[in-house]
Amino acid sequence: MEVPNSKNKTMISVEIGMEVHKVEAPPHISSLKKLKTRLKETFFPDDPLRQFKGQSAKKKWILGAQYALPILKWGPEYSLKSFKSDIVAGLTIASLAIPQGISYAKLANLPPIVGLYSSFVPPLIYAVLGSSRDLAVGPVSIASLVMGSMLRQQVNPVTEQVLFLQLAFTSTFFAGLFQASLGFLRLGFIIDFLSKATLIGFMAGAAIIVSLQQLKGLLGITHFTKKMGLVPVISSVFRETNEWSWQTILMGFCFLVFLLVTRHISIKKPKLFWISAGAPLLSVILSTLFVFAFKAQDHGVSVIGKLEKGLNPLSWNMLQFHGSHLGLVIKTGLITGILSLTEGIAVGRTFAALKNYQVDGNKEMIAIGLMNVVGSTTSCYVTTGAFSRSAVNHNAGAKSAVSNIVMSVTVMVTLLFLMPLFRYTPNVVLGAIIVTAVIGLIDLPAAYQIWKIDKFDFIVMLCAFLGVILISVQEGLAIAVGISVLKVLLQITRPKIVMLGNIPGSDIFRNIHQYKEAAKIPGFLILSIEAPINFANITYLNDRISRWIEDCEAEDKTQKQCALQFVILDLSAVSAIDTSGVSFFKDIRRVLDKKSLELVLVNPIGEVMEKLLRSDDANDLMRPDTLFLTVGEAVTMLMSTMKHHV
Amino acid sequence: MEVPNSKNKTMISVEIGMEVHKVEAPPHISSLKKLKTRLKETFFPDDPLRQFKGQSAKKKWILGAQYALPILKWGPEYSLKSFKSDIVAGLTIASLAIPQGISYAKLANLPPIVGLYSSFVPPLIYAVLGSSRDLAVGPVSIASLVMGSMLRQQVNPVTEQVLFLQLAFTSTFFAGLFQASLGFLRLGFIIDFLSKATLIGFMAGAAIIVSLQQLKGLLGITHFTKKMGLVPVISSVFRETNEWSWQTILMGFCFLVFLLVTRHISIKKPKLFWISAGAPLLSVILSTLFVFAFKAQDHGVSVIGKLEKGLNPLSWNMLQFHGSHLGLVIKTGLITGILSLTEGIAVGRTFAALKNYQVDGNKEMIAIGLMNVVGSTTSCYVTTGAFSRSAVNHNAGAKSAVSNIVMSVTVMVTLLFLMPLFRYTPNVVLGAIIVTAVIGLIDLPAAYQIWKIDKFDFIVMLCAFLGVILISVQEGLAIAVGISVLKVLLQITRPKIVMLGNIPGSDIFRNIHQYKEAAKIPGFLILSIEAPINFANITYLNDRISRWIEDCEAEDKTQKQCALQFVILDLSAVSAIDTSGVSFFKDIRRVLDKKSLELVLVNPIGEVMEKLLRSDDANDLMRPDTLFLTVGEAVTMLMSTMKHHV
Repeated sequence: MEVPNSKNKTMISVEIGMEVHKVEAPPHISSLKKLKTRLKETFFPDDPLRQFKGQSAKKKWILGAQYALPILKWGPEYSLKSFKSDIVAGLTIASLAIPQGISYAKLANLPPIVGLYSSFVPPLIYAVLGSSRDLAVGPVSIASLVMGSMLRQQVNPVTEQVLFLQLAFTSTFFAGLFQASLGFLRLGFIIDFLSKATLIGFMAGAAIIVSLQQLKGLLGITHFTKKMGLVPVISSVFRETNEWSWQTILMGFCFLVFLLVTRHISIKKPKLFWISAGAPLLSVILSTLFVFAFKAQDHGVSVIGKLEKGLNPLSWNMLQFHGSHLGLVIKTGLITGILSLTEGIAVGRTFAALKNYQVDGNKEMIAIGLMNVVGSTTSCYVTTGAFSRSAVNHNAGAKSAVSNIVMSVTVMVTLLFLMPLFRYTPNVVLGAIIVTAVIGLIDLPAAYQIWKIDKFDFIVMLCAFLGVILISVQEGLAIAVGISVLKVLLQITRPKIVMLGNIPGSDIFRNIHQYKEAAKIPGFLILSIEAPINFANITYLNDRISRWIEDCEAEDKTQKQCALQFVILDLSAVSAIDTSGVSFFKDIRRVLDKKSLELVLVNPIGEVMEKLLRSDDANDLMRPDTLFLTVGEAVTMLMSTMKHHV
Repeated sequence: MEVPNSKNKTMISVEIGMEVHKVEAPPHISSLKKLKTRLKETFFPDDPLRQFKGQSAKKKWILGAQYALPILKWGPEYSLKSFKSDIVAGLTIASLAIPQGISYAKLANLPPIVGLYSSFVPPLIYAVLGSSRDLAVGPVSIASLVMGSMLRQQVNPVTEQVLFLQLAFTSTFFAGLFQASLGFLRLGFIIDFLSKATLIGFMAGAAIIVSLQQLKGLLGITHFTKKMGLVPVISSVFRETNEWSWQTILMGFCFLVFLLVTRHISIKKPKLFWISAGAPLLSVILSTLFVFAFKAQDHGVSVIGKLEKGLNPLSWNMLQFHGSHLGLVIKTGLITGILSLTEGIAVGRTFAALKNYQVDGNKEMIAIGLMNVVGSTTSCYVTTGAFSRSAVNHNAGAKSAVSNIVMSVTVMVTLLFLMPLFRYTPNVVLGAIIVTAVIGLIDLPAAYQIWKIDKFDFIVMLCAFLGVILISVQEGLAIAVGISVLKVLLQITRPKIVMLGNIPGSDIFRNIHQYKEAAKIPGFLILSIEAPINFANITYLNDRISRWIEDCEAEDKTQKQCALQFVILDLSAVSAIDTSGVSFFKDIRRVLDKKSLELVLVNPIGEVMEKLLRSDDANDLMRPDTLFLTVGEAVTMLMSTMKHHV
């Protein structure tokens, strides 16, 4: 074997007579079977039916029932000890759920009692269908905000209260239908397109929008803008300074400070979670007593007013599937559905990972979806697993979905007997509760982390944030998702190609820009393509490879090395090609032939191999002397056949 | 080193005490510089300015002028010998361009003379600006069809002839503006999204639609549907059987057969290209003489009628940038612009590859764009490099863009002196010329090739085809592009992960499904991820890897092998990650920690390495004993530390 002198030492480890390994085509599989595999990987990556394999018919029935209703799985093994834990956790989240339910309903421009209704029925449904042990179900701030603001674009929630309620329930129905369909059709990966960066920017923006809306309650303003953006709200606040009520402001300020302090304590010492969990209820009780005692409602402090006792009335007759608002209702359902689903699934996955159990995303979607469909017929609006409440639930020691049942029963008792007590609850304290709840959505450390790791993700995050606070909640979200997808498409249009060099003393070849010691082999241009080759990038790949070759030839001339003879393409990382990709190989081969260069392919994976074999020029492209399993073997073998021009 | 007995022979080539290579982080580069590199790779992959490097100021000026006007580059070296070849080629394509120009203008519902105008000015502009030596410029069938059909949706070309002409010129202006902008902003890769499969389906569909439209002329029908679809045209043809004119049909049939036979001869014997190139003009002359001699225009054969002598009138005052049709005009400009650009660039690239010279895509876009902008002010409609005419140009021995000038001069002579001769040219012969021209767009062998290589691409092709003939030209195109992009997105959402095994007698690890001899190493799960890790796929990757691990553990139990201890992720093919990707590694690590499994990373590329290092858990993920340069080294080293449970 002849090795050019200058680089003698780089090829030390490659020995004469070493065995050369053949590249194999994968075993033949019919198109139908391939389609089946592809569909399975796309829609059933978790292989949900694998536990059924090899079981008896009776066992299959039991497993099937348990699969459909997870309560049948954990119910029989449920212990008294777990029950005790769940009671504590359930009561704790109920103390949070009641004030938050009322507050979030107001955020959605709905009567406060709808918030309590929504904390009664959906948790019961989820307890039967859901597979997370930590999810605490109920209304959440973002979905409430989005539903309220979208419906308010067309309907006035004060003057057309019944219509607004009808549209809210119908939107909830569509949200649930959409969620359950995603799960049922196994299209859950759609929510993956809301990236972490998008969500962080979006939630921070939404938190600010929600907090700004609370200025109405916190300042006691009665004539408030209907718009959501930063600019109109701020200008509205300062236009109506004559409506500011000092009693309200003072009260709001006190409770806001109290709530923020308790929140801070619980963050610092997670064991004291019950302090922040109990604070909202305590605030409601204290403020209500205060208003009652001092008749503050006569001094400019607005109160909730009379609430009717009784459980959820049925509302299936309020669902409207026709009329001029149908488009709005479906759109609202889609957006609130996807937002609440994203939150619910993320929460479920987070706690499942903490406790090391599995949550089936698609099954959770069906559970959340059905819970909303049933909710929409029983006077509930959109609910999901809330992050803050689930964290409290987890910290309080919840063992199973029974804590949701306990919470639900507590809310039921409240609905049946305690409603008159809320009559004098001031709206300002609800505002303070909402602000405290949403402030946790602004995650500055995560934003800093994103800045540190990936500048482009930071831009996506910023777009989501600015879009939400300056344009609108939906458009901010759409812009961020659009940019994320564009980035991915751009990555495909401009795939990475790197030049490989030999790591001295080995037969390893690596990127010469990453490994300074990696050395070029004279006479060889070794490129690794790191993306699927398809219609969107063959032009670029062609241009780029031609440029590499020209650069390489120019360099050879100036350095008087032996001239370029072989272009080795390492295809290890080419995970797929299409027909355009096949023609790319033909083109590049023709270009190289014109320059009397030899094209050598290394390690094509099964699919690439197969498609190249099926094309007409396969014999030419797949000649045994130009197809190798590793770059090292290719270089060793080709060196021995090399002509020497220096 | 302890090696489990059962697999002793598989690790034969890995020797004790072998050197272990370190994974290196790439040299530090500032974010700004990285952004610059990224932007350069995205927008200037061909590095157009590299020839300017290290040149004197004067040389730079000359190179700059040559860059802007390619004629300055080849002009001075132009020889008499090339000129002789170009005259022959120019006259040949002129004989094709004149009848085709008239025919395509009729296809676009424009007066026939506009087709000749469009074969006069644009070729002159292209000769100065264009860098292809083979492109023959003029009107083309698909852009003519699309422009005619889109404008006809809102304006009647017969009753509102002037308005229709104004809109056609304005559309041409926008088409040119859009094409030049794409080139100038270096966004040329947008046309890459029209994949080969899409184009083949689209062109076949368009050819059928165009041919169906010719039934009007070929059958002599006067009342014809304005719709383009298969169904309305066929039903219109058979509803109006009373209008069929046997004289027209007979004449059309004869000339169609004649043209198809000549086309067939030229395909079989490429040297006889002049037979098919001259046939259209001969048909026009023969049919005109026939009509003139027998006064066939009085027997139901419709003729073109009187055409005015003279060169292109200026038309800049006919451009309309306001009014109710602006939206339509912009849309028409965009679609015809992108279609004609795709054809022009593809033709330029094809012949450049054949003759082994470079065509700069972005520069070509500017040339084609400016040619259309200028064309729109001189009574021309959309033009580009036509495939059929360029092929004739190439076969006739064209050496440079001078053949376009020769063609243009010939058309000029025609416009000045020969227009009265077309008075008696029958429309039926124009129909026959169009059908013969577009029939070449139906590429059945290519369709079969696509079916053979990639079934999914075949579906895309079919969608484009059926969309065009059943719905509409634009929507068919949009559907096919949408599906292509969706496929690419789906590939990202469901990236490939393969399990690697050791090729016996080497330290090479390859996909165990492709290489039957590749053997699993007990205690190790070796996975290779073959896609960028980002927000769209981390959920899937998490699920999928968990399933691999469970499967592996289950298998270990049944086969009583030593239990799984190490999960090795080969990251060679992970070309990029984002913040979600970083958190994916944290998550997978936590999951593995819970199961007491060790996560080992192999060969992360520079960008991945860097982003992981910047995250907080880097020290944990990047521990030297769990980070290796090759799978072989990782396995060898880890085996020596392995605990044995069998």
